[in-house]
This record gives sequence, C-alpha cells and structure tokens, in this order.
Amino acid sequence: MVRKENLVVKHEIRGGTGDVYMYHILEENELMGHGTLYARVVLPPGSSIGYHRHVGNTEPYYILKGSGIFVDEKGERVPVQAGDVCVIACGESHGMENTGKEDLEIMALIINEG
Amino acid sequence: MVRKENLVVKHEIRGGTGDVYMYHILEENELMGHGTLYARVVLPPGSSIGYHRHVGNTEPYYILKGSGIFVDEKGERVPVQAGDVCVIACGESHGMENTGKEDLEIMALIINEG
Repeated sequence: MVRKENLVVKHEIRGGTGDVYMYHILEENELMGHGTLYARVVLPPGSSIGYHRHVGNTEPYYILKGSGIFVDEKGERVPVQAGDVCVIACGESHGMENTGKEDLEIMALIINEG
Repeated sequence: MVRKENLVVKHEIRGGTGDVYMYHILEENELMGHGTLYARVVLPPGSSIGYHRHVGNTEPYYILKGSGIFVDEKGERVPVQAGDVCVIACGESHGMENTGKEDLEIMALIINEG
C-alpha cells in the first residue's frame, strides 16, 4: 500500500528555535512497540532541535542534506554534513542546529532500549 | 558520536537486477533486537530489488528522490515518487524497481513483528 508522508510542523521543538517540519513515515503504533518516531525532519536555516535527553530509548540522526551542528552527549558542538550518522547511547542527550544557509534534512528514528 | 554512513554494494539483491548501493545508518546490533536493517538505499536507473516476502518483520520503503515502481503485496505495480511511503504488513511481499532516468533513493527500515 502506498500513501503520502504525513507532515506535522512543530514550533520550538524540545526548547529549540523556529519551526521544524516533521514528515512522518510511520506512526507510533506502526512501530509495533519497538520505537516511537520514524520521520524525515527538515530544519530551515536558523532553526534547531533543543538539547534533550533520551531515557529508555535512543535516536540516531542521519544527515540527508545540508549542514549544521550536532550537539553531542558531552555537549560538544560537532559540524555535520550529508552522510554523517550522529549516535547517542540510551540515557544520553543531543540536539541539532541548522547553522547553514540551506535547509538541513535529517532522518530521525527513535528506537526503544533493548 | 558522529561517524560516516557505511556503504555496502549489493548485486542482484533479492533476485533483482544490477547493483544497489546500501548506505547503512545503524548495524543490526545497534537496533537492539527491534529490527535488522536501517539504511538509505540507492538504485541506479534499471536496477531493482527483487520481489521478496517478510516473515516475522516488515520493511517500509520511503522514497527520498527519483521515481520508480513499487511492487505491492498483491503484486500490483504502483508508480512512486519522493514523499511516498510504501508499507506492507508482516508476512507480505514487496519489490522496487528504478524505471526512471535518475537514481532512485529510498529509506529502508526492517522492524520486527510486534
């Protein structure tokens, strides 16, 4: 069965700045208890996902397009670009900022702890 | 922690045609028992992922770029493009073909049955 992605616009997500466009691929019930989010996420220039902690799950970010700053589990600011995979362990924190001039597109998958 | 995607080139995958470029985001152990594959998959023009069944898991395809044909659970050939989500239930079959002139890029996530 083929359907369209499901766009939800979020404002100042996780304490970040600006609007973030979340194109949901699966809804939470479709992850069948294994996770809670599977989406392509678009951050326009200047927008960010605030620094937040993942308790009982993790959320790898995968950079599809653009560039920005990944704030890692130590709070360090790491420049990232397409092809980069940003991982944290369950219980750790992260954030993402679009510091570039083009949209920053990432894949977000929240999977539960094993 | 930031690292690069992990490229693995597959030939005639699942009985399909040509080469398919799999950019792994997580390795199987990192899915912590919830699934077996999380990758961006690039099909050059003329290549395909052969029709195959998912027993005990499912694999939504999400179209990032390009166009092609999704072969659904009934064997029907459905034209797809960026933003389309191709879902099957656990136990059902699917395939994907790049019938266009540009690369077809999709996200593949194999998650276990609930």
